This record gives sequence, structure tokens and C-alpha cells, in this order.
Amino acid sequence: MTASALDLGLARKVLADQPFSVLLGARLEVFEPGRAVLALDLDGRLQQQNGFAHGGVLAYAADNAITFAAGTVLGPAVLTGGMTISYVRPATGATLEAEATVASSGRRQAVCRCDLYAVAADGARTLCAVAQGTVLTAG
Amino acid sequence: MTASALDLGLARKVLADQPFSVLLGARLEVFEPGRAVLALDLDGRLQQQNGFAHGGVLAYAADNAITFAAGTVLGPAVLTGGMTISYVRPATGATLEAEATVASSGRRQAVCRCDLYAVAADGARTLCAVAQGTVLTAG
Amino acid sequence: MTASALDLGLARKVLADQPFSVLLGARLEVFEPGRAVLALDLDGRLQQQNGFAHGGVLAYAADNAITFAAGTVLGPAVLTGGMTISYVRPATGATLEAEATVASSGRRQAVCRCDLYAVAADGARTLCAVAQGTVLTAG
Amino acid sequence: MTASALDLGLARKVLADQPFSVLLGARLEVFEPGRAVLALDLDGRLQQQNGFAHGGVLAYAADNAITFAAGTVLGPAVLTGGMTISYVRPATGATLEAEATVASSGRRQAVCRCDLYAVAADGARTLCAVAQGTVLTAG
Repeated sequence: MTASALDLGLARKVLADQPFSVLLGARLEVFEPGRAVLALDLDGRLQQQNGFAHGGVLAYAADNAITFAAGTVLGPAVLTGGMTISYVRPATGATLEAEATVASSGRRQAVCRCDLYAVAADGARTLCAVAQGTVLTAG
Repeated sequence: MTASALDLGLARKVLADQPFSVLLGARLEVFEPGRAVLALDLDGRLQQQNGFAHGGVLAYAADNAITFAAGTVLGPAVLTGGMTISYVRPATGATLEAEATVASSGRRQAVCRCDLYAVAADGARTLCAVAQGTVLTAG
Repeated sequence: MTASALDLGLARKVLADQPFSVLLGARLEVFEPGRAVLALDLDGRLQQQNGFAHGGVLAYAADNAITFAAGTVLGPAVLTGGMTISYVRPATGATLEAEATVASSGRRQAVCRCDLYAVAADGARTLCAVAQGTVLTAG
Repeated sequence: MTASALDLGLARKVLADQPFSVLLGARLEVFEPGRAVLALDLDGRLQQQNGFAHGGVLAYAADNAITFAAGTVLGPAVLTGGMTISYVRPATGATLEAEATVASSGRRQAVCRCDLYAVAADGARTLCAVAQGTVLTAG
């Protein structure tokens, strides 16, 4: 693992180079060995028909947080192989936080878990989805 | 299953009521018993840092196509319980198509599968992800 | 893909070399390009507390059928990376059949789907679980 | 949640009523609020062709540990809806331990995570699989 792999500034630059993440307003809040936290404001554009965050927004956040968490141990050249997400509560509030941690890593892949929280304006956090994903080294 | 559950126009209205789907430009192309196809143009806003569609876009499309496919057998009041997606090839091309079919349905839930294709300007289709999800009746 | 990779006799020998598969009485019924079918008799030893086949039996059958299906395209040196199974109905009957097909394959991995059927003495088949898994080339 | 739902003796009786768990020699070592640990000896009967524990054994252990962990919060009448398992290292050693914890629980379902460890004769533990599953209340 190189120093650059664990550089928050560099990781934020990768995120800024993802037009879809920019469209959704995603921010990388934590990028440290074995852990990454991605956050985005739950503005009206991200909702489904009942006023909650769309499941696809949560799936995006889980996918990306898992990929960045894996990047902290595998380096920047990674491909996400797949992901499982279980939705447990409707997501509503000011912010969505996706906190991913590396459960296992090897030479060729890392498996990460992710908790997704809806955060209210007063800071109260509600777990709204739980995910697990596999990230492979590229090439 | 009511007639309205299988009405393409009604289903398109649900999609139009999802601000996130509108933001991504999703279209419902098929909505028939046991099957739904969702499509969206792969414009630059939906890319990651290497010019491919972001994995989160594929996850959104799988999640939503699976939910609509389940809706064709469970009716409109459904909650997606969870989803698994395996990414198999980078998605690039003009359009993304997510084709979901009901593999099993009961009183309380449906399990659906989804194939995600990148479609080139000349119509060539490349499978880029494979998904499976569970949808529950609400309430 | 070598001819041997598609040899039913050779694949049956691999299965016979798996003590756990022998313990469960698994049989390989089909092993052809892109498809494998594994079957086992649902005798009393394989039940849970309510007289149905234990979920772990279905998970075993899905895992192994998926691995063999991938072996038809990737060759014999494979590692199963992971699997998702959705249980849809209690499995009861004379036989369990796990039918796996390759949904996508590349140089490095294959993604397979699997349908699990409980087969009654009169031949009636009931879908009881639906699975998806990823198999990697070893080494 | 009733007292009986959290009774280790009662939970062990359920396990003893599962012929498949008896066949595999599974033991329930922990059954406390939000957590269950299932263990089994990795004897030769449980191996695949390379001398490691068969992936199906790990899938069984994950499935059952997840179901018992959910039972600590949902009560005994539960159905496992589905499970995802990622295999990260070959499992070899004296014992397999599946430690499941409840990540989220509600009225209708619980989502649990499970770590699977191979435990050597000297007590060294190696993480060999990571799982996540959803358990529904029956009826």
C-alpha cells in the first residue's frame, strides 16, 4: 500500500473526476486505512415517488463507498466485482452517509461492508441499508 | 393482480414521479406480466473517472427495473428488500437497458433477475451486469 | 476451453473426490457448455426442524452447481468467489435439482445463475430457491 | 422478545431437531441478544477435493448462524429470506466458527452479518468468508 493510496486529497480528486458523483453531490469525508465514508445531501432530486431517497441513490453510495474503502488497501487501480444491498428503512433526512470498512483483503481482492445512515438536521442517525461488496485489483 | 398494475401508462407515471429517475433520464420501455425494461441514455453526466457508466448508475437501473418487474405481479404497493449486482464488463455506449424478469412470486414477495446491457449506437448489445433482487409487498 | 473441461465423466470424478458431496449424495446430471445440473435425494438427514430440506442444503447445491457450470467455460481450476441465494418456498419432495447456467463469462471470471427445484415422486417440480454466483479462475 | 427466545438451551434444542445440523456436527456456542455463534469440527467428511472445507459447509454455517442470530431478536418463528456469502480464503483447521450479529431489526425482518473463521488446533483464527442475510418473521 503506497502513501498515495491513503491520501484523502487524491481520493477526493478521483471522486471529483466521476461526473456521476458530482451530479449527485457526493463528498468523501473519511479515507483512512480500511475505511471510507461518503456523504451526500438528500435534496429533492434524489427522491423516489414517496419523498424518500431512491434506493438507487443508496445503491450508488454503497457501491462507491465500498470501492473507496477497498482502494485504501488495494491501491487506486480497482474494479468493483459486485455488491449486495439490503434496504432496512426508508431514507429521509438531511444527509446520507455511507460508511464502508474492509472486512477482508488479500492480494487479489477485498471484501467490504457498508452501513448507510440517514442523518437528520439535528444529527440523529438512522441505519437505512446494509451492504457488502467485493472489489478486485484491476489488470 | 389488477389491470392497473399492468398498465404501462400508469407505471410510466410512477417513474415520472421519481425525481431521481427523471434526473437520470430513465424511461420505462416494457411493463408486461413478469417483465419490465428500463432504459437510459449514457450521457457524460453518468460516467465514472474512466469514461464508463458509473457502477451506481447500473445499480440504480437494476434496482428500479427489478422493482417495476415485481410490480407487474405484486401490484404497485411494493418495497424492494434488497439486491445483488455483479458487474461483468465496463458499460459504454449510447444506452443502458435493464431488463428484469420475475423468477418467482408469491403472496408476500417476488424474486426478480435483471440483465443490464450497454447498447451501442448501431444497436449492438453487450451484457455488462447481472442482478437479482427481492421485492416485498408493502404493509 | 479444453475438451476435458466439458467431459461429464471427468466432472463426476471431481464430484466423487468431494467428501462433502458424497456425504450428501450429490449427483452431477448435466455438464455441458454453459450449464450444469446437480441433484440429490432429499432424505431425512438433510432436513431442518420442520421436515423441509435445510436451507444449508440448498445453499450447498447452488454453490456447487454454480461452480460446475462455471467450470464448463473456465476449465477445472476455479475458485467460487461468492454466491447469493434467495429462498422462495420450503423444499420438500423426493429430489432437489440445482440447475446452473452461465450468464456471463470472461477471461478471469464467470457469473452464473441457478434455479433450485424440489421434485416430487411424480415428477412435479417446484422452484424453491434462486441463486447467483461468481466464479474466478484460480491462480 | 420473550425470554424463551434468548434461551441457549431452547435454541440448542432447535438445532438438535435439525437432522442436517446433527449430520454436520454443528454446535450452538453463543445465543445472546443480537448474536449467535455456530461451530463445527472440520472433519474429513466436510471437505472438497483439495482438502479444504467445502464452500457448501461454509454456506450452511453462515445460513444457520444468521437465522439463529435473527431469532434472538425476532423470536423462534422465522424464515430466512436469503443470504450472500463471499469466500475469502480456503478454510482449513480444526473447527469452523460462524459468528453472526444483527445489523438491523424491525417488526418484520432482521438483517444479520456473519464472519466465518477457520480455527486451528492452537486456537489461531483465520477469516475465511463474510456473509450477510435477511430473516423474515414467519406468517
